Amino acid sequence: MSFTAALTAAAAAVEDHLMATLQARADVPVVHAMRYALRGGKRLRGFLVLESAAMHGVARADAMPAAAAIEALHAYSLVHDDLPCMDDDALRRGQPTLHVKWDEATAVLAGDALQTLAFELLCDARLGHRVELIAGLARASGAEGMVLGQALDIAAETAARPLTLEEIITLQAGKTGALISWAATAGAVMAGADTGPLSRYAQALGLAFQIADDVLDVTGDAAKAGKALHKDAAAGKATFVSLLGLDAARARATSLIEDACDALAPYGAKADTLKEAARFTIARDK
Amino acid sequence: MSFTAALTAAAAAVEDHLMATLQARADVPVVHAMRYALRGGKRLRGFLVLESAAMHGVARADAMPAAAAIEALHAYSLVHDDLPCMDDDALRRGQPTLHVKWDEATAVLAGDALQTLAFELLCDARLGHRVELIAGLARASGAEGMVLGQALDIAAETAARPLTLEEIITLQAGKTGALISWAATAGAVMAGADTGPLSRYAQALGLAFQIADDVLDVTGDAAKAGKALHKDAAAGKATFVSLLGLDAARARATSLIEDACDALAPYGAKADTLKEAARFTIARDK
Repeated sequence: MSFTAALTAAAAAVEDHLMATLQARADVPVVHAMRYALRGGKRLRGFLVLESAAMHGVARADAMPAAAAIEALHAYSLVHDDLPCMDDDALRRGQPTLHVKWDEATAVLAGDALQTLAFELLCDARLGHRVELIAGLARASGAEGMVLGQALDIAAETAARPLTLEEIITLQAGKTGALISWAATAGAVMAGADTGPLSRYAQALGLAFQIADDVLDVTGDAAKAGKALHKDAAAGKATFVSLLGLDAARARATSLIEDACDALAPYGAKADTLKEAARFTIARDK
Repeated sequence: MSFTAALTAAAAAVEDHLMATLQARADVPVVHAMRYALRGGKRLRGFLVLESAAMHGVARADAMPAAAAIEALHAYSLVHDDLPCMDDDALRRGQPTLHVKWDEATAVLAGDALQTLAFELLCDARLGHRVELIAGLARASGAEGMVLGQALDIAAETAARPLTLEEIITLQAGKTGALISWAATAGAVMAGADTGPLSRYAQALGLAFQIADDVLDVTGDAAKAGKALHKDAAAGKATFVSLLGLDAARARATSLIEDACDALAPYGAKADTLKEAARFTIARDK
């Protein structure tokens, strides 16, 4: 299956799993808001879980709760990131953000419950090595991972000097890299296999992903992206593009994608779809 | 050991465990804010974990990560509950709330990371039956537990009519009851024992605890409580006191504490400290 077809199929299956999980819950605004936050998106993280699982012979249904979990975790981070006291964004995935459609209290609570849902999903008996998956997701998303990246990002906005390249790499490793690494290695973890090659793949991919995001912020079309763009330059923030220039940033991303693909050599042709996924991350328009 | 001595000892040990866990983390404001949020408090939930574990022969050190986890989860809920868009409280445990001392973004992120920390702590290899503990905490704190209770509480503020007694009982079962139940049954869960008696104890205790909170909101001293009081009456919210009257509310709490103690009959004298804890919850002044 081509990468695009695989991504679309994964996105639909992950969304089905999430909606089925939430269907039986209470009929209150916070649950409606959770469903809303879980709709749409590229589902790249969920796809990475399902694909890395398939590469290790794990049946799709047995990996699905982990794919749903990482998307719930990612959705929580977006809902809280969009809050007025954080990035103050009104548009996400082409729709009003959650605090715009409901209110701030509902956005805080829905985000909180989406994080909880992620850990609940990882307790599904179909998953192998559940405690390792849970511990890994906690490390990747907490104060040493994603939240650290977000905190560094906020600190950068009021810092006396723009960040250096090294500082931006640390920031992104937390903010987006840690969850991407968890997703890409999840298949190996649940199969009890060596996570080394997928970990190297994910590290290069995560950095390339963030560089591509910075490029997109400068060159992209807000209508296609479904979110506000050109925010970083307006805020005077250092980005990979401001530090390296547009051409060098693109070249760096391309070289990282080559590194990512090389890391998958041990898997041979089984890794073709993940390689295509890596190339997609720097060619996307949203 | 008397209950008061046991609670004080448990509080100190739980705080040590939490501070040791956070000591190695990054030197960023969000981690300082997490430590701040984890200081002080009665630690009743952590105590319930340690005491129910002791009743099942689980060594204190082997239960400690679960006691720390429930206190981290509870601290996250307080930090987010105090936010301007939620209860908008400036004082907690006698100190400025987190968004007052830092800012709203730090409070959102620190709360998020405290929730994550709770699940990370439950992955500690010293704990027995970790997945059951994690799944239980997720159910107790998510959109069918604590968050549901908080959402119902917020909805009540703008509802056309005050809540009925039955609706308040449902609300509190989520908002405070679910976490208290998790804590009180944790010892049985980690020992692989029957959770029935402790579950019945916790249900009665949780309801009595909330009634006592409502009584305290009317009769208490804000300086001793370390938080704002008389908020419910000012907001015209239905409470156990507004619905039952002060005397009947107190009588109901006393009768629930008797039920809670009766439920522990199978444990004999081993449950004496938990029985004392139950009596304390309705006699406290904070």
